[in-house]
Amino acid sequence: MPPTIDSSLSPFGAARATVKGEPLSADELRKTNSYMQASLYLCLGMLYLRDNPLLKEPLRTEHLKARLLGHWGSDAGQVFTYVHFNRLINKYGLDAIFISGPGHGAPAVLSQSYLEGVYSEVYPDITEDESGMQRFFKQFSFPGGIGSHATPETPGSLHEGGELGYSISHAFGTVFDHPDLIALTMVGDGESETGPLATSWHSTKFLNPVTDGAVLPVLHLNGYKINNPTVLARISHEELEALFIGYGWKPYFVEGSDLPSMHQAMAATLERCVEEIRSYQKQARTSGQPFRPRWPMIVLRSPKGWTAPRDVSGHHLEGFWRAHQIPIPDVATNKEHLAVLESWMRSYKPEELFTKDGRLIPELKTIAPKGNARMSANPITNGGRKTSLLLPDFREYALSVNPGITSAGSMGNMAVWLRDVVAKNQQNFRLFGPDETESNKLGEVYKAGKKVWLGDYLPEDEDGGNLAFAGRVMEMLSEHTVEGWLEGYILSGRHGMLNSYEPFIHIIDSMVNQHCKWIEKCLEVEWRNKVSSLNILLTATVWRQDHNGFTHQDPGFLDVVANKSPEVVRIYLPPDGNCLLSVMDHCYRSENYVNVVVADKQNHLQYLDMNDAIAHCTKGVGIWEWASTFPDEEPDLVMACCGDVVTAEAIAATALLREHLPELKIRFVNVVDLFKLISHIDHPHGLTDKAYKAIFTDDKPIIFNFHSYPWLVHRLTYKRPGSLNIHVRGYKEKGNIDTPIELAIRNQTDRWSLAIDAIDRLPGLKNKGGVIRQKLEDEQIAAKNAAFENGIDPANLRDWCWPYPAPTEGAGNKVIDAAMSKLGLGGEDKPAAAVVGTSE
Amino acid sequence: MPPTIDSSLSPFGAARATVKGEPLSADELRKTNSYMQASLYLCLGMLYLRDNPLLKEPLRTEHLKARLLGHWGSDAGQVFTYVHFNRLINKYGLDAIFISGPGHGAPAVLSQSYLEGVYSEVYPDITEDESGMQRFFKQFSFPGGIGSHATPETPGSLHEGGELGYSISHAFGTVFDHPDLIALTMVGDGESETGPLATSWHSTKFLNPVTDGAVLPVLHLNGYKINNPTVLARISHEELEALFIGYGWKPYFVEGSDLPSMHQAMAATLERCVEEIRSYQKQARTSGQPFRPRWPMIVLRSPKGWTAPRDVSGHHLEGFWRAHQIPIPDVATNKEHLAVLESWMRSYKPEELFTKDGRLIPELKTIAPKGNARMSANPITNGGRKTSLLLPDFREYALSVNPGITSAGSMGNMAVWLRDVVAKNQQNFRLFGPDETESNKLGEVYKAGKKVWLGDYLPEDEDGGNLAFAGRVMEMLSEHTVEGWLEGYILSGRHGMLNSYEPFIHIIDSMVNQHCKWIEKCLEVEWRNKVSSLNILLTATVWRQDHNGFTHQDPGFLDVVANKSPEVVRIYLPPDGNCLLSVMDHCYRSENYVNVVVADKQNHLQYLDMNDAIAHCTKGVGIWEWASTFPDEEPDLVMACCGDVVTAEAIAATALLREHLPELKIRFVNVVDLFKLISHIDHPHGLTDKAYKAIFTDDKPIIFNFHSYPWLVHRLTYKRPGSLNIHVRGYKEKGNIDTPIELAIRNQTDRWSLAIDAIDRLPGLKNKGGVIRQKLEDEQIAAKNAAFENGIDPANLRDWCWPYPAPTEGAGNKVIDAAMSKLGLGGEDKPAAAVVGTSE
Repeated sequence: MPPTIDSSLSPFGAARATVKGEPLSADELRKTNSYMQASLYLCLGMLYLRDNPLLKEPLRTEHLKARLLGHWGSDAGQVFTYVHFNRLINKYGLDAIFISGPGHGAPAVLSQSYLEGVYSEVYPDITEDESGMQRFFKQFSFPGGIGSHATPETPGSLHEGGELGYSISHAFGTVFDHPDLIALTMVGDGESETGPLATSWHSTKFLNPVTDGAVLPVLHLNGYKINNPTVLARISHEELEALFIGYGWKPYFVEGSDLPSMHQAMAATLERCVEEIRSYQKQARTSGQPFRPRWPMIVLRSPKGWTAPRDVSGHHLEGFWRAHQIPIPDVATNKEHLAVLESWMRSYKPEELFTKDGRLIPELKTIAPKGNARMSANPITNGGRKTSLLLPDFREYALSVNPGITSAGSMGNMAVWLRDVVAKNQQNFRLFGPDETESNKLGEVYKAGKKVWLGDYLPEDEDGGNLAFAGRVMEMLSEHTVEGWLEGYILSGRHGMLNSYEPFIHIIDSMVNQHCKWIEKCLEVEWRNKVSSLNILLTATVWRQDHNGFTHQDPGFLDVVANKSPEVVRIYLPPDGNCLLSVMDHCYRSENYVNVVVADKQNHLQYLDMNDAIAHCTKGVGIWEWASTFPDEEPDLVMACCGDVVTAEAIAATALLREHLPELKIRFVNVVDLFKLISHIDHPHGLTDKAYKAIFTDDKPIIFNFHSYPWLVHRLTYKRPGSLNIHVRGYKEKGNIDTPIELAIRNQTDRWSLAIDAIDRLPGLKNKGGVIRQKLEDEQIAAKNAAFENGIDPANLRDWCWPYPAPTEGAGNKVIDAAMSKLGLGGEDKPAAAVVGTSE
Repeated sequence: MPPTIDSSLSPFGAARATVKGEPLSADELRKTNSYMQASLYLCLGMLYLRDNPLLKEPLRTEHLKARLLGHWGSDAGQVFTYVHFNRLINKYGLDAIFISGPGHGAPAVLSQSYLEGVYSEVYPDITEDESGMQRFFKQFSFPGGIGSHATPETPGSLHEGGELGYSISHAFGTVFDHPDLIALTMVGDGESETGPLATSWHSTKFLNPVTDGAVLPVLHLNGYKINNPTVLARISHEELEALFIGYGWKPYFVEGSDLPSMHQAMAATLERCVEEIRSYQKQARTSGQPFRPRWPMIVLRSPKGWTAPRDVSGHHLEGFWRAHQIPIPDVATNKEHLAVLESWMRSYKPEELFTKDGRLIPELKTIAPKGNARMSANPITNGGRKTSLLLPDFREYALSVNPGITSAGSMGNMAVWLRDVVAKNQQNFRLFGPDETESNKLGEVYKAGKKVWLGDYLPEDEDGGNLAFAGRVMEMLSEHTVEGWLEGYILSGRHGMLNSYEPFIHIIDSMVNQHCKWIEKCLEVEWRNKVSSLNILLTATVWRQDHNGFTHQDPGFLDVVANKSPEVVRIYLPPDGNCLLSVMDHCYRSENYVNVVVADKQNHLQYLDMNDAIAHCTKGVGIWEWASTFPDEEPDLVMACCGDVVTAEAIAATALLREHLPELKIRFVNVVDLFKLISHIDHPHGLTDKAYKAIFTDDKPIIFNFHSYPWLVHRLTYKRPGSLNIHVRGYKEKGNIDTPIELAIRNQTDRWSLAIDAIDRLPGLKNKGGVIRQKLEDEQIAAKNAAFENGIDPANLRDWCWPYPAPTEGAGNKVIDAAMSKLGLGGEDKPAAAVVGTSE
C-alpha cells in the first residue's frame, strides 16, 4: 500500500513564508550569506580537521582527526538564525541571548563565538589567526579539548542541550524579571517530541509582559532525528499551525532551502517578530495593564544538514538523517569521499572569507554586534548581572520550643521567613513548585507575592485564589517546567527555590543530574562566574503519606543526588523547625550547589530553640545530651538518627529503653548534614575519622534511624571505623501496607523496633532482655491493632512527648557545643550548615 | 488592574455541546441519572462512613471515620462518563476498558465496580448488601484496607494514576494489537499539564487503524488542581480546540452542569465518537489501506466536585479547588457541616436506589453491561488474554568466540535473535525505543518488523527509512511515551522490550519506580494474573561516550532500581555477546519483573562460547579459571568485575600482574547477576554467605571493577564476610575530562589503576612492588599522552587481547562448572539467569 506523500512537507525549494517582503539590500544579503558561509566553514573544520585549517594545501588524510566526532545536522539552521538576529540586535539595540536547544549542533554556536572574537577573549590561546583556527578546530571533540555540545566552555551558553527537552523552560527562566531581554531559542524538532518540551510551550501563561522579557522560539523543522523523521515535520501545515495557536503562540513559517529567498524571508520574519514583541511590551508597560499576548514564534523548515551535498554515493545526505552526525564518515579511507569533502569545504570559499593569515575579513567582522551586544558575550549567560539576595535575620523567626514537648509543623516559621525573603527581593527571587506550595504549608508567602497567572480569570478567583498578573510564586503541574524555569532563573543570576512532594521529585532526577554536571564543569572554566545554588525543599515525605499510599513512597532522590560530584551536592535533613530555618538560611547564601532539604510538613515534636539549632546545624551532627543518659560516660549504645519523623521515633525509643533499662548508657546523636557521615577526604563536609569515632564510637552498637533507604547510610559509612556495628533502619519497599497509619510503624522505623534492635545488640541482658523484648513487642502490636481498628493512631502515641527533663527554652546554645567540646571537637571541624552571615 | 474574566470558561449552566441531539428517552435519562447518583452516594460513603451505610439512622459523628481521606474532586465527572459509556457497550457490543487518568478519584471506579457486582466477585466478603456496603465504605483509605487511587486492588484498573501523566500512553499501549478494544481514557486537566501527558497526544501517529484498537480520550476540564486553576481550563475555546486539532484529534465539547441536558449531550457525543471510531476502522480494514484518522476525543467541562453544594459557610465548594479532596473536612467537629453532609448524601436518595437490605434496585442493575463486557471485569485489565511468546533457540545464534581474542559487538548476534523473536511474534511482541534502535546496533530487527509510522511520508523514506504503517518497532523521541506504551502493552498481556541509551534512562526513573510498585502490589492481590516482565536494555553506556561527554555519563539507574522490592527487580550485566543472549532469553521468559540489562554496543573482547555462557549466566557469578593463575590453589588476590567494558580492563589488569608477578595467585571472578552479591535473605538471587565466601574469600584483597557508581557494590556487600577487603573501582563524577578517549582510562577503572591497586594491597612485595608500580604508572601515563596527542587510543591498547592460553572454542560448558564445583558449589545455589526453557 502506497504511503501518503505530502510534498508540501519537503524542505527544499524557494522560500515559502508567512511574512512577505525583502528587507535586505543586495549588499546586506551578500554579506549575511558570506558570514553564514564563514561560520559553516568553521563548523566543518571543527568536525574534520586537525591541520591545514584554511585549506591552503590540498586536503590529505593527515590533516584529518583520527576520530571524527560531532554533529552537522542542525548547524546550518542555527547559524542562519543567529546571523539574521545579529542584524536586529544592531538595528534595535537589543539585549539578546541565543539558546541552542539541540545542543548537539555546538559547532554552530562555537563558530559564531569565534567569529565574534569572544572565543579568543576568553581563551587567549585560540587566536583569530591561522594557528588559532587550527587549535580551535583540533580541540573540538578531542582529548583534552572541548565537548561537542554547547557545554559550559562555550561562551554565551547557559543551556548545554546534551539531554533534550529543556530549552523553552530554560529560556523562560532567563527572561523572568529581565524585562529587556529576548531569548532567541532554537528548539529542535527531535527535542520537541519530549514531554518536558511539549508542555513547556504553555509557559506563556506565566509570563508578564510588564516585568518579564520575551522568548522568541524558532522551532527548527530539521526533519530528522538520529534515524527517524520527526513527528512535527510530518504533520500537515494546518495541524502544525493549529498546534501552536492552541499552545497560545502566533506561528510564522519560513520554509525552504534556496539561500537568497530564505535570507530575505528570515530577515523579514525575525524583524516582524521583534516588532511584535516590542509592541506588546510597550502596550502593557505604558498602560500598566499586563495581558497575555499571542507571542510570535517561528517555524523554520530547512533541510537537515543544509548546504551539504544532497547525495553522496547514491544516498541522500542533505535533507536526510544521514546528515545528523559526521556527514561523510569514511573520508580517511575513501579517496572519492575525501574529494567530496574538500570540494564541499572549498565551496564556502574560505579564501574570500578569511585573510591569508586567517582573520575574518573586515567587511564581515563589522556586521556582527559589538561588546556585550554579541550574543556569545552577553553577561546574562555567565551568571548574569548577579544581584545579592537580601535575607531577613532568620533568628527572629524562631519557633518557641519546649524541647521534646512542643508539637508543631516545621514549615510554620519557615513560611513566615520565606514570605519576608520574598518581600525583600521582589525582582530577584521566586518560589517554584508544581501546585503544592499551599499543600506544603508555605501559603504564607502569598502575602508577599502571589501566584503568577496570565491565563484567564473567573470571578471565584477572588475567593482565596491568590492569583495575580505579577507575583513571585510560579506553579504549574509540571515538575519539568518549574525546574527548568528555576534553572534558567538562577543561571542568569537570580535566586529561588523549588518546593515539591518528595515522592515525585524522581520525575526530575535527570534534570537535576544535568544541572549538577553543568555547575561542576563550570568550576573548571576560569571565566565562569558563580551562580546561586539550586535549592530543593522536599516535603510530603515518605513517612506521612496518609491515603496516598505506596505510589507516594519513595525517598530515593537522595541516592541519585549522592552520586553526583561532592563539589556540588549538599543534603540536609533538619530534625525540627528551627533547624530548618537555620539550614535554609545557609542554603540561600550558598553558591554553585544543589542543596536538597527534606522536612516533614505535618505537626511533630520540636526539640531545639534557635540558639541550639544554630549550634547544631553549624556542626551538622551533634550529640543531644538531654536525650542521652549518663552523658559524661562512655556509652553502651549509640542511638542515631537523620530525618525529622525518624528522629521523633528514635527519641521515643530512647525513652522506652530508659524506662526498661534505667542503667543503660545511651548516647543520642542527630545528623542534619548527611555528608558528615562520609570521610572528609571524599566530601568537603565529611568528618575526620577521629571526629566520627568520637561521636559514634568504633566499638559500640549504633542503632541508626534514617529517613531514606537504609543502604545510603551504609554506602556513606562503609570506610568508617566500626562501620560493621551500625544497624540502620529506614524505608524498604517490601512488606508495606499502603493504607493510612503512621507509616513508621508498618515500615519498622518505629520506637519499639528500634528499642528491640538495641536490646538484641546489648550483651549480658540474658533473661531480662527477653522479658523487655516481649513487653515491647506486645506494646507494638497493641498500637498497631488499635490503629487498624480505629483508623487512627492511639492517643497515647499521637500525643506522646519526651517524659524526661530537657533543657528549657532559652538555656542557650551551649548544649551541643558542650557535648562536642568534651570530645575535643570544639573547633576543629568546619561548620557544615548555617551560621548567620557565612556560606560554605 | 482588573483581570480578564471569560465567563464562557465557567463550567456551570445548561449543556453546551458540539454534537446536538437528545438520544435518551425520558426513561433512559432517569435511569442513567439514578445510576450515577447511586455511584456518587457510594463515593461519599467511602470518603466519610465507617457505619450507617444506608443512612437508615440520622448521621452522627460515630458513623464517621476518625480520619477522612480520599478525593472527591473528579468523582462525578468520571462516573458520568463511565455510566454513559455503559449504554454504548450494550448497544454496540463494545470491548472496552476504562482508564482513570487522575487516579485520585478512585471512588468513581470503585463504586462502579461495586455496582457492577465485580467487586463482590473478587472480594467475596464485600457483599452486595448492607453489611457488605459498610465494609466497602470502611476499608477505603483505612488501615488494612485499600488505597485511595485506582490501585491494583481495583478491579478493571491497569493504571493507578498516583503519579500523573501516563494515562494516554498507557491507553495506547493497551490498544496496540487489540483491534477491537476501545480504551475510554479520562485525562485530568491537572495531569494534562505534565510533560509526559502533553507529548503523548501524538501517539496517534503510531497507531494503525487496521491492527490496533482505539483510544477515546475524555479530557476532563475539572477546572482545578490541588490549589490552582488548570491551564487548559483557562484558555479560550478557540485555543483549546486548535490545540487538539494540532495534536491530530477531532475534539468534541461537552460543557455545563445542568444534569438533564448534560446527560443528553454526553450520550449523543459519546455515540458520535464510537460511530466515528468504528467507521474509520471499517474504512481502513475493508480497504486494507491504513491511514491516520483525526480520531475523536471529548472535552468535558464540568464543575470540580460536581453535585456537591456550591457553597459551604460562605466559601465555594462545587466548582472550586476546595472540592479536590475531602470536600467538607470538619464534619466531626462542626455540627452544621455534619448536617450539610447528611442532607447532601440524602439528596441522592439512597432509599430509592438501594433496596432495604442494601442491594442496587433491579431496574438499575439491569442497565449495566454483563459479564466481561463490564469495564471493571474486562480481562484485558488483568494481564490480558495472555499469549505466550515464541522464542527461537538462542543457542543457535551463538557468536563464534576465540576467548579473550575475538573482538566483536555484543549486539550483533542478539539483534539477529531479536529479529527472529519479532518474526515469530507478529501480534504480541514489540520493540520500543526513543529513536536509538539503529544507533544501538539493533537495526537487524527491521527485517522482521519495521518502524510504525502513520505520519506523512516523503519519497526519500524509501532510502533506508524502514518506516511502515504496520510494524513492530515503536520509536518516538520521548522516553516517557515509549515506556508508557510498553507498560500498557505488557499489562494487557503482551511482551516487549525498551532499548535506550543508559544516560537518559533516568528520565523515566519515576515511571519505572511506579511500575515496580504496581507489580509488587499485584503479587499481594490474589485474583491478579501475572504479566510479562518489563525488559529494559541499556546501551550507549557511560564508558563509551566518545564526543558526547559528561552529560551522557550516568550509570546510576541501577541505584534507583536496586532500591525497589527484591521481589520484582533483576539486574544483569553480561560480559559479552553470548552471555547477553543467554540473559535476554531468560528475561523474555520471566514474569512480573523489571529486568534491567546493561551491555555495550561497541566492539570489545568476547570470552565465552555459548555453552560456557549458559553455564556462567545460570550461576550468575563465576570463577574464570582460564583468566586466573594457579586456579587449584587458594588465591592471594581476587580480581572481580561486573559489566562488559570493565571486565575487559580487569582481564587486562590480570595480564599485567601476571607479567610482573608471575608467582601471584589470582582468582578471576565475573558477576553477571548483580543481586548475587547480596545475601539470599535479602534477595531471592543472593548467594548464601558460604557460597559468597567460597568465591570471594573472606580474607583476601578483592579488587572489584564495576560498571556503575562504586558504592552500589559496597551497599550490596556490606554484610558479607570480608566486606572490608573489597576495593571497588567504578564511575565517579569528580575529575572527569569529557572529551573522547577511552573513558576507562580517565576515570580510573583502567587496567593500570587496577593492577596498582592490587600491588598496594599485596603484603611482602616491598621494593619490588615499588618498582612494578612505577612501571605501571609510566605505562599508564604514556597511553594517556598518546591518546591526548593523537585523539585516539594507541594501537597496542585498541588491539590488545588476552596473551595467555584460554580454552578454545567448543571446549564445552565445563569450565565454570568445574571451578564452582571445586568450591562445593555444584548445585546448591539456584540458577540465576537463563537455561533454556526455564524462567525464574
